[in-house]
Amino acid sequence: MNKLRNLLRAVPARRGLLLLCCLVWSTARAEDIQSPNKQLTLSVVLQEGGVPTYSLTYKGKTVLKPGKLGLELKDAPSLTSGFAQTSAQRRSFDESWQPVWGEVKTIRNHYNELAVTLTQAQTNRTMLVRFRLYDDGLGFRYEFPRQPKLDYFVVKEEKTQFALNGDHKAFWLPGDYDTQEYSTVTSNLSEVRGRMKAAVTPNASQTTFSATGLQTPLMLKRSQDGLYINIHEAALIDYSAMHLELDDKNFVLESHLTPDAHGDKGLLQTPCLSPWRTVIVSDKAADILESKLVLNLNEPTKFKDTSWIKPVKYVGVWWEMITGKSTWSYTNQENIKLDSIDYRKVKPNGTHGANTAHVKAYIDFAAKHGLDAVLVEGWNTGWEDWFGKHKDYVFDFVTPYPDFDVQELQRYAQSKNVKIIMHHETSGSVRNYERHLDSAFQFMNKYGYTAVKTGYVGDIVPLGHHHYDQWVNNHYQYVLEKAAEHKIMVNGHEAVRPTGLARTYPNLIGNEAARGTEYEAFGGSNADHTTILPFTRLIGGPMDYTPGIFQTRISTFNPQNTSFVHSTLARQLALYVTMYSPLQMAADMIEHYNEHLDAFQFIEDVAVDWDDTDVLEAEPGDYITIARKAKGKSSWFVGSTCDEQGRTSTINLNFLDPGKKYVATIYADKKDAHYEKNPQAYQIRKVSVTSKSKLAQYCAPGGGYAISIVEAGR
Amino acid sequence: MNKLRNLLRAVPARRGLLLLCCLVWSTARAEDIQSPNKQLTLSVVLQEGGVPTYSLTYKGKTVLKPGKLGLELKDAPSLTSGFAQTSAQRRSFDESWQPVWGEVKTIRNHYNELAVTLTQAQTNRTMLVRFRLYDDGLGFRYEFPRQPKLDYFVVKEEKTQFALNGDHKAFWLPGDYDTQEYSTVTSNLSEVRGRMKAAVTPNASQTTFSATGLQTPLMLKRSQDGLYINIHEAALIDYSAMHLELDDKNFVLESHLTPDAHGDKGLLQTPCLSPWRTVIVSDKAADILESKLVLNLNEPTKFKDTSWIKPVKYVGVWWEMITGKSTWSYTNQENIKLDSIDYRKVKPNGTHGANTAHVKAYIDFAAKHGLDAVLVEGWNTGWEDWFGKHKDYVFDFVTPYPDFDVQELQRYAQSKNVKIIMHHETSGSVRNYERHLDSAFQFMNKYGYTAVKTGYVGDIVPLGHHHYDQWVNNHYQYVLEKAAEHKIMVNGHEAVRPTGLARTYPNLIGNEAARGTEYEAFGGSNADHTTILPFTRLIGGPMDYTPGIFQTRISTFNPQNTSFVHSTLARQLALYVTMYSPLQMAADMIEHYNEHLDAFQFIEDVAVDWDDTDVLEAEPGDYITIARKAKGKSSWFVGSTCDEQGRTSTINLNFLDPGKKYVATIYADKKDAHYEKNPQAYQIRKVSVTSKSKLAQYCAPGGGYAISIVEAGR
Repeated sequence: MNKLRNLLRAVPARRGLLLLCCLVWSTARAEDIQSPNKQLTLSVVLQEGGVPTYSLTYKGKTVLKPGKLGLELKDAPSLTSGFAQTSAQRRSFDESWQPVWGEVKTIRNHYNELAVTLTQAQTNRTMLVRFRLYDDGLGFRYEFPRQPKLDYFVVKEEKTQFALNGDHKAFWLPGDYDTQEYSTVTSNLSEVRGRMKAAVTPNASQTTFSATGLQTPLMLKRSQDGLYINIHEAALIDYSAMHLELDDKNFVLESHLTPDAHGDKGLLQTPCLSPWRTVIVSDKAADILESKLVLNLNEPTKFKDTSWIKPVKYVGVWWEMITGKSTWSYTNQENIKLDSIDYRKVKPNGTHGANTAHVKAYIDFAAKHGLDAVLVEGWNTGWEDWFGKHKDYVFDFVTPYPDFDVQELQRYAQSKNVKIIMHHETSGSVRNYERHLDSAFQFMNKYGYTAVKTGYVGDIVPLGHHHYDQWVNNHYQYVLEKAAEHKIMVNGHEAVRPTGLARTYPNLIGNEAARGTEYEAFGGSNADHTTILPFTRLIGGPMDYTPGIFQTRISTFNPQNTSFVHSTLARQLALYVTMYSPLQMAADMIEHYNEHLDAFQFIEDVAVDWDDTDVLEAEPGDYITIARKAKGKSSWFVGSTCDEQGRTSTINLNFLDPGKKYVATIYADKKDAHYEKNPQAYQIRKVSVTSKSKLAQYCAPGGGYAISIVEAGR
Repeated sequence: MNKLRNLLRAVPARRGLLLLCCLVWSTARAEDIQSPNKQLTLSVVLQEGGVPTYSLTYKGKTVLKPGKLGLELKDAPSLTSGFAQTSAQRRSFDESWQPVWGEVKTIRNHYNELAVTLTQAQTNRTMLVRFRLYDDGLGFRYEFPRQPKLDYFVVKEEKTQFALNGDHKAFWLPGDYDTQEYSTVTSNLSEVRGRMKAAVTPNASQTTFSATGLQTPLMLKRSQDGLYINIHEAALIDYSAMHLELDDKNFVLESHLTPDAHGDKGLLQTPCLSPWRTVIVSDKAADILESKLVLNLNEPTKFKDTSWIKPVKYVGVWWEMITGKSTWSYTNQENIKLDSIDYRKVKPNGTHGANTAHVKAYIDFAAKHGLDAVLVEGWNTGWEDWFGKHKDYVFDFVTPYPDFDVQELQRYAQSKNVKIIMHHETSGSVRNYERHLDSAFQFMNKYGYTAVKTGYVGDIVPLGHHHYDQWVNNHYQYVLEKAAEHKIMVNGHEAVRPTGLARTYPNLIGNEAARGTEYEAFGGSNADHTTILPFTRLIGGPMDYTPGIFQTRISTFNPQNTSFVHSTLARQLALYVTMYSPLQMAADMIEHYNEHLDAFQFIEDVAVDWDDTDVLEAEPGDYITIARKAKGKSSWFVGSTCDEQGRTSTINLNFLDPGKKYVATIYADKKDAHYEKNPQAYQIRKVSVTSKSKLAQYCAPGGGYAISIVEAGR
């Protein structure tokens, strides 16, 4: 035993505490581990027939009943039964790490681990399931060691169960291989089947697969005891994205992977790993929002130099196209071919947004208000005929329209210390994008672009592939890694939902992967939308939600568009705090900001990178109030968003440094404000506050408030 | 009328004679045109219901009965009926052009053209069928002009019929979406169905589709009058490759396109064109071999500088791996991953062919015998585990094995004025190849490689795609065009069959796309194989057949391999003439050549580019004898190949310049030679000849002869 102890001591923890314990049993048995705070207990049991199962309790209450583990393979025996447990390794781990950007300065990665090795005697194959139990939840993944009898294999389906303890309230989206841009439905799981049809609203590319198929992150709340459960995945690399198939009789959720064009759900070669399957658990909703479990389960970054990765606040030539006021395209020509159209010979339509003069006005505005960058969409040729045609060669990513002067804009932006954000819409044509990737990134390097917004609108080309299958996920990963080689930050729209990969690849500064502000121009989103997203989509990583719409009534500038933003103006400010992202757009047109510069002051002031975060109050679907401390500064920002009911938010400012005096500027809804009837009724007031202050602040229906809190005298 | 005449005079012919005649009818009617020599007559008739048909006669005899034209579309009405003819344009064209390399110095492109515009009133769509009638056959294609009601469309199936006039003898391969590497079956069309099963021999990737599906080029011979008919396609770009589905009751062949992973057979955007469908016709078999119709139907090259494109005679480190004597791989490691294997830590297997010393020996040999280049396969990492696993990241194309010294070999080859030919096996993983294409070609440019042999062994990755579908054809085209940007010549193996594209892209100096010499090491090919290939596969373009095997009994150097080459040694020499290619390998190992340097003299002497070609005698499946005049020289080379029966070839040397004296060196089978029993029994004799000489030369079973004819005193 002394020898073992010495051995254990000799194992160095990378940056933290590592305890390793390895025991080998000859027969199957139950394995338990507890979370560091002992509130969570995981139990792994090989059931009759060698079927591996796991269950989870929280404070003695069942979270997950025994759920099966394993995978079905194509043209090979399943890895779901016939297993014997050949070993169980335990270790504890505790380290703290600093994210390149984030909600907090330091993240603690503290877990107890159980790695169970399962061997299938009949096929002589081995699979390992590695569980990590945190205070905030569970992560586990499959590991397939290199072995003679399992080298290459094809996943027919992953059969991981999440066996809930009864019917739960769920905040859900229809499972879909191609889009996440649905409105969240709030219902009991037992009601999913009945509400599925209505939930599947039209999208540019969509492939639902079941009347009870759901997406992750799936947010659940248990009726009986108010327990919150969130199910997602972490570190989705070289694997297909997971959906959840609901058994609505037994309330068992089972993994359902995204198939590729050949119907396969994963082509794997040992040694290899599945993504982590994650279950965040707490009896406080705020804990779900503060969980760093998904990030912690991702690998530390291997980037040696991260100095080129910087959070970004930006305006853009974008909302005007989304709302139909101007156009991405330079002409109204139909059916064009990039290799034969000569734009000098085609009549301009006169509505092209991305023209040099207009972009300069945005650069001027950004410079004046201290914003970092200007996004410009529709700058490159091809937008006349880019969408829904499954066109292969749809964009070349390097040829500007005749009225967009790349060199002059580079000079101008540089002189104003503003960056222009590149836009690469791929129209889903992934091969075409890869073919042009090097030249596109070289173009960006040449002209001083440091960030790119990518887009994958419409079906993936070649047809048959899906936005979330392994082959296409590998494409996003390829783009991300290529971008890093060019020191380019990526904000991927319509790409697969994030799974915390930004820890490993911190140049992934944003994703869409949900219903963003753009839908407010396409009929609108529910007023409670932003009280849910942080519990669902944002669990995987930051979202480029594009808040900040001041003129919420689109018809005022485009009478053709009767959509309106389901939010008060004050709440639009709150989103800069509640919807965490290192990439924040001030999404409205600058003429609207110029009408409300007093309110715009909050956007000008608010940070995009943080030293600390405190979720003050939260209930999914009802309200979220968050305070965040600006990176390297003493100032705090608070944001609060509520649902269509309105409410009074009561918060305690005890997050402030004791003894210090602060000035709080409160941007709030007026009493008569209302997201639909009176969205622009806001008021701004300044008050002195300390850590002892309390605040009761009215939030209008679909409203909210934002506060900047600056140390007095600074 | 004067005005029209003036107009016609004003239309300039590009480099030849152009006559344009445009007439518009309001009702459908028959349209006829004749070939320039009037032996062929094409008739186009709109049958009842507006169904377009065409028929063809040769010297008054029916070649093709009325066959239907058109396409079925996906999710749109068919383009097969309901047409009215709205115009018919006629013109004549006659020009001569010089290929960058070829069988002759100058090619005459002389045809009469009929372009019929068909309009479908019900859908307001227009399709044009352009027919070009040559003295040697017919080409026609579909053209889809830019039009409001037909912008993007998906081809469900092309419905082009070739309505034969009864049962014909056919030289056929099973239709297959992924391979052409079958033995040719010689049978009547009525026997296809019964012989299909046996014809489908195993291949690394194969997808047959029908019991009566056939490949092109399809060579036919009509029993009743000995008419020869060859059906293929020309200028296959951005379209899927065509097969032929045989109706074996009516002897109608109908086009059958290759589907992609989504089941689609073509995603098209107007304006666009189908490839040409070609029908070569003659009562002389030699005319089929001399036809330039497929080349003529391709566009002239747009390359301004072609000085970097040069025919190549080469040896290679290749046959030793094919026969199992040495290995592509450097180790015997199984299940490797390129990004994690460290070859310095893995034990070499000691059988790696592509090692520096061995390659130097090949360079020495090439230099000594005046050959241009050395092909080296297995030089790059990954060959331990490259095949049949549908591996994505299978090769990187730039990392040599530790025992292959790229820089030293560049220096050494350069000092000997020899090129090394690059090898890029993709294992069918087309995305991986495209991702590495730029760096791979830059690597080639850096280290002085000017030609690449590409390979697509195994199923296309991503799975579901086929070697001959539109998406994958576009890949080959992309590689070809990228290669041209880097001044690199391409020799594509396992890629789609050529369709004369080398006229437009003369850096496509070779293709495999049939059963090459390698199959002689995999069980063997029929002894008549090379009497058929020039009538089938070679109609589309040159083949890298890799002739020149002197040691035809493989077991002499690898006892494990009992395959043998179904050819005498003398016939191996003949193939350098009969199997036209600007890229000719001396495929055997140099130790075998050193045992027969007297015979190797022919390979050393034979040209790879020609000023003239004269097919002296030919009968598909029986024999072919061809004389060719070396480019820019007075010397001629003759090759003759025969089937398993053996024969005496009687030829007339009247192709020689009258009045000149020549010395002919004849490399022939001895009387007791036999492809199986006595393959190396050859004799070499020199005789004086003139244009009045005749020669009766014995060819052993599976044998043949080769002659070099040099002007006396030179």
